[in-house]
Amino acid sequence: MTLTDILHAITPPDSQAMTEAQRLLDGKVKPPGSLGTLESIAVRLAGITGSPRNTLSRKVLCLFGSDHGVYSEGVCSSPQDFTRRLMLVYADSRDGGINILARQAGAELRLYDLGVKGLEPHRNIITHRFMDSGTHNLRRERAMSRELAESVIVWGAELVREMKSEGVDLIGTGEAGMGNTTPACACIMAATGSRSPGLVGRGAGLDDEAYSRKQRVILDALSLHEDSLTDPVNILSCVGGLEIAAMTGVFLGGAAYHVPVIIDGVISIAGALLAYKLEPLAREYMFASHESPEPAYTHAAEFMKLSPSLRLGMRLGEGTGCAVFMQIIDDALAIINGMGDFSSLTKGE
Amino acid sequence: MTLTDILHAITPPDSQAMTEAQRLLDGKVKPPGSLGTLESIAVRLAGITGSPRNTLSRKVLCLFGSDHGVYSEGVCSSPQDFTRRLMLVYADSRDGGINILARQAGAELRLYDLGVKGLEPHRNIITHRFMDSGTHNLRRERAMSRELAESVIVWGAELVREMKSEGVDLIGTGEAGMGNTTPACACIMAATGSRSPGLVGRGAGLDDEAYSRKQRVILDALSLHEDSLTDPVNILSCVGGLEIAAMTGVFLGGAAYHVPVIIDGVISIAGALLAYKLEPLAREYMFASHESPEPAYTHAAEFMKLSPSLRLGMRLGEGTGCAVFMQIIDDALAIINGMGDFSSLTKGE
Repeated sequence: MTLTDILHAITPPDSQAMTEAQRLLDGKVKPPGSLGTLESIAVRLAGITGSPRNTLSRKVLCLFGSDHGVYSEGVCSSPQDFTRRLMLVYADSRDGGINILARQAGAELRLYDLGVKGLEPHRNIITHRFMDSGTHNLRRERAMSRELAESVIVWGAELVREMKSEGVDLIGTGEAGMGNTTPACACIMAATGSRSPGLVGRGAGLDDEAYSRKQRVILDALSLHEDSLTDPVNILSCVGGLEIAAMTGVFLGGAAYHVPVIIDGVISIAGALLAYKLEPLAREYMFASHESPEPAYTHAAEFMKLSPSLRLGMRLGEGTGCAVFMQIIDDALAIINGMGDFSSLTKGE
Repeated sequence: MTLTDILHAITPPDSQAMTEAQRLLDGKVKPPGSLGTLESIAVRLAGITGSPRNTLSRKVLCLFGSDHGVYSEGVCSSPQDFTRRLMLVYADSRDGGINILARQAGAELRLYDLGVKGLEPHRNIITHRFMDSGTHNLRRERAMSRELAESVIVWGAELVREMKSEGVDLIGTGEAGMGNTTPACACIMAATGSRSPGLVGRGAGLDDEAYSRKQRVILDALSLHEDSLTDPVNILSCVGGLEIAAMTGVFLGGAAYHVPVIIDGVISIAGALLAYKLEPLAREYMFASHESPEPAYTHAAEFMKLSPSLRLGMRLGEGTGCAVFMQIIDDALAIINGMGDFSSLTKGE
């Protein structure tokens, strides 16, 4: 498949299935619409799968690890080697935040090494290293070539096809990568045409000096690449990251292969936004989960007219917001599948 | 126990256990505070129980059914008999919204008849009818006597003591009662001193005419009882409802007996607010779950400085928001109990 093939494969959600799902919900023993987002989730899932009722048999949380050349500009307060070490926590001791929350959600956690510096092959990590030491420094040069950006997108989309063939019916998008809020914010600013330094956030927690530096780095990078930021593939190539490109692919794959994909925080929504810019219909296959405190997250969500349901002040990444939201999706399906009809109200007569 | 005894039994949460819980969380493999509300929930639970780590073994959703004399003023678009019939749905077919969502949350649903018109004794419903046909019409007279209001509060508080002795460690507060957003809104306006008609909401869905009527009824009632709205017990007596008084008691009992209690929507938060007015420390034992679209809900939450975490547009009542939120509490406890320490990051060295 080429990127063009994938974009062509994206069609609108099934409106007949959505109408039927809404009809089922309107027949339940409750005032119409009174279960709010639990109803709209069930309706949107119907549109995605083409069936009015759905059940989830296999949820997967994909966690993409990768490193970033822009780390060397001092945009992150943690040692860069934490990317590698965190991947080992997820893979070995399996007690990272996402391990715990994926377990709570009944989701399988899959770890991908797309370019984590120094990470050795590991039986619990899928190795697919597109760049051996992560991306180049986007303040000085393109983070990756345009060709590579496109390959990573296609790879991400095809991952969804493979997962679907395994029976996976819900995908969450997580990441690990020191400094990755910098490319995420740069992608969002490039894609929305904003150059407001107020969109830059403090990531895992920067002091004032490092925060000013991060703002400068992002604005410098956008200025350096200004003439090349012509489309989402070029944006990823110039100021993106391997995990962001992979997520763009996963969101497009979700839309092409009719599998719902959940947005996590600011890195994930950068991928979602670029997928949306490539094909606006892709949005219909995405779910926003939680509201990240990063200002670029809110900007991207508003741009796409998506409203996250969880306001938990979470900013860990890893896909943790997706995992929490999976339980809300379970609740939505339990309602459409299990709640009684309004006619049962007459039983008491 | 008298109400005075219960109020005297309320003490601040255990600050030492909270400090220890925060210390545990700060040692986890994540930036400090990056799990946001999942952390603050775990810390607050530590303060409530006195133990830094907690597990939940028995969750109960208490659903209080009762009818309202003010129904006759035309403030509700559903037949009044729906209160009784809904109680039978919860008790017999067990496929109401709250049945489904309590099951999802692993919570037991307990149904209480506090004064549902025409409801016969039922093996799945705990009958404790304080007024046989529900409250009096609060636009014409006190909804219930002051003595009765106080009795219902004490009963609700003692219910928590009994549940605690059974091992219940988390309580959700639900209700059913046609027209009960009217007393709830009146209680909130009385307790906060507001007379703004903009705080009145449309409940399960009123047309413009019925909505204006509901606003007038509430303002008339507040005006009729103006001189008597001197304390929370009198507010419940004048413009409350049996389920609201019972919930006030449950929130006070949660604080007195150290059991966390979850707020649902506008009826539940009216009960919580009156408990808070009786003893401000009671707030430390409450959790806000979801943001109700009723404006009085937002007003009461802001008054108490509580922030609901779920933005699901739900307005069904029954305790459905509490049930969804119970899963978030489970996640919070899974994190403090299961997530690895920061020291595990050095394993990869």
